[in-house]
Amino acid sequence: MESLRTRVLTSVVGFLVVLLVLWFGRVLLLPALLLLSTVALREYVGMCERQDLDVRRKSLYVGGAALIVAAYPAFGGGPWDGISWREVALAFVLGYFLILEVISPGERPLERLVYSVFGLLYIPWLLGFFLLLRFLPDAESGFAFLLLPLIATFATDVGGFFFGQFFGRRKLAPEVSPGKTVEGAVGGLLLSFVVVFALTRLTFVSEVWSAYDALLFAVLVSSASQLGDLAESLIKRSLKAKDSGSSLPGHGGLLDRLDSLLFAVPITYLFLTVVVYGGG
Amino acid sequence: MESLRTRVLTSVVGFLVVLLVLWFGRVLLLPALLLLSTVALREYVGMCERQDLDVRRKSLYVGGAALIVAAYPAFGGGPWDGISWREVALAFVLGYFLILEVISPGERPLERLVYSVFGLLYIPWLLGFFLLLRFLPDAESGFAFLLLPLIATFATDVGGFFFGQFFGRRKLAPEVSPGKTVEGAVGGLLLSFVVVFALTRLTFVSEVWSAYDALLFAVLVSSASQLGDLAESLIKRSLKAKDSGSSLPGHGGLLDRLDSLLFAVPITYLFLTVVVYGGG
Repeated sequence: MESLRTRVLTSVVGFLVVLLVLWFGRVLLLPALLLLSTVALREYVGMCERQDLDVRRKSLYVGGAALIVAAYPAFGGGPWDGISWREVALAFVLGYFLILEVISPGERPLERLVYSVFGLLYIPWLLGFFLLLRFLPDAESGFAFLLLPLIATFATDVGGFFFGQFFGRRKLAPEVSPGKTVEGAVGGLLLSFVVVFALTRLTFVSEVWSAYDALLFAVLVSSASQLGDLAESLIKRSLKAKDSGSSLPGHGGLLDRLDSLLFAVPITYLFLTVVVYGGG
Repeated sequence: MESLRTRVLTSVVGFLVVLLVLWFGRVLLLPALLLLSTVALREYVGMCERQDLDVRRKSLYVGGAALIVAAYPAFGGGPWDGISWREVALAFVLGYFLILEVISPGERPLERLVYSVFGLLYIPWLLGFFLLLRFLPDAESGFAFLLLPLIATFATDVGGFFFGQFFGRRKLAPEVSPGKTVEGAVGGLLLSFVVVFALTRLTFVSEVWSAYDALLFAVLVSSASQLGDLAESLIKRSLKAKDSGSSLPGHGGLLDRLDSLLFAVPITYLFLTVVVYGGG
């Protein structure tokens, strides 16, 4: 019971905090993402180290922070047409990681390098899309657009849970996440589609999205959200961890909460820039 | 003798082919880079597999090709201000890699993933900068700009060789590349500076670069070129390989030839976009 109360309390407080942070995006979102990135990277590093995989802790936090700051829209898109500030930051962070290994290679420098680089792309690079989406195409619409993957992910989770509970028969990915079923995945997709379709038809979004866009988006975002979940399970399984950590009271690790959004938010941004606002 | 003749012949032919490919950049550079990327990735995959590190061969070639095509300037910079086509491609290739692992995780899915992602960034992502630089800011100047890191890298090699030979005493990075000396590194930097300075002062480049720019660039490109060399040594050492492969008759592997340029070309592009044409 204690645990349930803690869970509910963390959920409600978490939800309100998230809304607040998103609303005051210009001031609060950047520091919030810096915090999330550091905590999530800490969990990743922790899981790696428990498997005797060495990762450069501090450089990863600093490099991750650089990648997120580079997504801040105040700096403009990038220094030139074909390159974004995020790529500039990525290039310098990679160079910096390499310099560190060349100076003190230790025992297994390549292993340290590849796991650090993966952590960098998996957490701060993907989190940077939250900031990009918040201001796409401007601060007002961006707020609504950023709510879409959050709501769609929630609908996917709820739909997946109930469909899986009642109709779940065929395993979806038995080696990665044994609890998931094909029926649950389809249910998540369906509920998310209904919710996204309703939302995009009833709000201002309908002015820029066609019904076809809404359908395509619902399928993409729900699939991405489920893939994010499976990807994190895969990482945990490979690193023989049950939870990613214990950063959130009663909810296990932060990465366990963030996993779906890490994919749902970038796909929303890519969908909007490539399909809706379309092509250069 | 046979080997020396082969070496010289490969060098001369190679040099002429490179000039030709660069000159006809719009038609020949893209297929040439696709070929280089595939051959270099093959060497990387080969080194990994000999150490029993499993990498997704075909997906890596295809993903690498996508990353290079995304750098082709005909597509414009990117779908939106804060994101380039290369990042769009990177996001989809990463997602694709993850889907493959979720579907058939095999024994060590995370290991396969991290080494594949590193190969993707190290080879095709860096090679993409060749294409970006070739057309910065247009096809005429871009040709000259792309020659700069090639010449600077050559000067760094020559300077490093002779200074190292005559004055070499202190080891530069004994654990990574025992043959390199601090004196050789400084010599490479000096000769490269003289050559770059002369070139940028005597050609049209002086119209856009100040003398200060030329100095800064010479230090950056020569350091990057030497770091590229050390980085490849580090990778080879970690994978217990002497040469990266035997793709070039008499010259060992392609990666052994390409290593310095993989860093010198991107730093030239970053220098031009961030410092010279400057900041959004």
